[in-house]
Amino acid sequence: MKPLHIIKIGGNVIGSETLLQKFIGDFASVKGLKVLVHGGGKETTELANKMGVVQTMVKGRRITDAETLKIATMVYAGLVNKRIVSLMQANGVQAIGLSGADGNVIKAKKRVGTEIDYGFAGDVTEESVNTKAIASLLENGFVPVFCSITHDGAGQLLNTNADTIASVLAAALSKEYTVQLNYCFEKKGVMKNVEDESSVISKISKEAYKQLLGEGIISEGMIPKLDNSFDAISKGVNSVIIGHSDRIVEMTEGKAHQGTELVA
Amino acid sequence: MKPLHIIKIGGNVIGSETLLQKFIGDFASVKGLKVLVHGGGKETTELANKMGVVQTMVKGRRITDAETLKIATMVYAGLVNKRIVSLMQANGVQAIGLSGADGNVIKAKKRVGTEIDYGFAGDVTEESVNTKAIASLLENGFVPVFCSITHDGAGQLLNTNADTIASVLAAALSKEYTVQLNYCFEKKGVMKNVEDESSVISKISKEAYKQLLGEGIISEGMIPKLDNSFDAISKGVNSVIIGHSDRIVEMTEGKAHQGTELVA
Repeated sequence: MKPLHIIKIGGNVIGSETLLQKFIGDFASVKGLKVLVHGGGKETTELANKMGVVQTMVKGRRITDAETLKIATMVYAGLVNKRIVSLMQANGVQAIGLSGADGNVIKAKKRVGTEIDYGFAGDVTEESVNTKAIASLLENGFVPVFCSITHDGAGQLLNTNADTIASVLAAALSKEYTVQLNYCFEKKGVMKNVEDESSVISKISKEAYKQLLGEGIISEGMIPKLDNSFDAISKGVNSVIIGHSDRIVEMTEGKAHQGTELVA
Repeated sequence: MKPLHIIKIGGNVIGSETLLQKFIGDFASVKGLKVLVHGGGKETTELANKMGVVQTMVKGRRITDAETLKIATMVYAGLVNKRIVSLMQANGVQAIGLSGADGNVIKAKKRVGTEIDYGFAGDVTEESVNTKAIASLLENGFVPVFCSITHDGAGQLLNTNADTIASVLAAALSKEYTVQLNYCFEKKGVMKNVEDESSVISKISKEAYKQLLGEGIISEGMIPKLDNSFDAISKGVNSVIIGHSDRIVEMTEGKAHQGTELVA
């Protein structure tokens, strides 16, 4: 099977023109088949504020009411996605921007029956992914750039967590490709001590993860990313690396001492 | 060569949920290869007003300053494009939304050297169109849905007239397909008397068009659409029909007495 890199970038890169340009230049040098997944949280809050739409967050999650869904669609699928795609094209990457509705690539289920009403939030699993459509784009030389908007297949757009999208894409595409999943953010990796950049843990097994969790060493914000990662590994993803967005070339080339590698 | 329908819808369809749903149901029944092109003018003005961004129009054309380009990108490539794509998917159409940057499908030139500074306005010709990328999408079963945002290939998004996009797509793709171009709007066709819906002219030749122009019979708003149409015909487009958005199935099936057919 051909190798495929699935790279997720976080809000810190998207929010900074300098970081974004640097990142996309690096992304252009990543060899072979590749996919980008992005969110864009800060811009959504900014636009909502400008438009006077109050944002409700419960336990760090945005409640997506009808107006917020419109804003998220405009920001993620419009402003941010097209900015990234046009910069990629300027760097010689044959990028094509996708929401889950485009090519029906990700069909989500509206979250229902939970204690909190999250509104137009879409949940996804690896069964949500249209592997055939994505593979046909990859095989025709396109580099898919996924934003975190999905759809339910019945005409409703939905807001979906970008980390989870990256994880389910990796799991589903691992049936066709040897997938390496990269979560890029503003830290060098998973750290023993969040205050100390030199405390990056170079490798974490599923077993060790349980132990680190028990000892309270994993910071709360990292837990969903790591859960997503181990979930992807259990579903056939070859390798998951969590690291700094300015080290993407090294991470994808398997250079040592970059980021935290997660293993089964 | 295979037949290909290129259909352009106007703001009146996009602005009405009822008309849009009806139109997309009809579009789903159009047989064979097809492409949609859309604008979304009214929504852009509405969002600009909500955000307090003053819109300047000169001779019916929007001046696209940096803030307006952001808004246009959010509305055309985000809100409107994803709404259309998700509704198409709900109707069984394998739609994929595209700005000109996606797959580098339309590379425009920023308008410069004109008396009026139009800002981030992009001009296109049939040479702007990446026929190969679009054909590869069509041949893989995708139905491209173009919004009116393009790019310059150097990382700059640009705002481009949707009628012109439809026309240059038709001209470029006529090298690979037998293209029928349809401009859909809220009238039954080109009318002798704009007050009288029964005065639709069923066929206009290039020669007759000059004469009608001379007699002042063509309303000012129709002139760019007709100029685009005759331009497309002169570049190899097989047929251009201008008609009502609720008659798209009849128009694409060549049924008589629907819309105005333009001929060389």
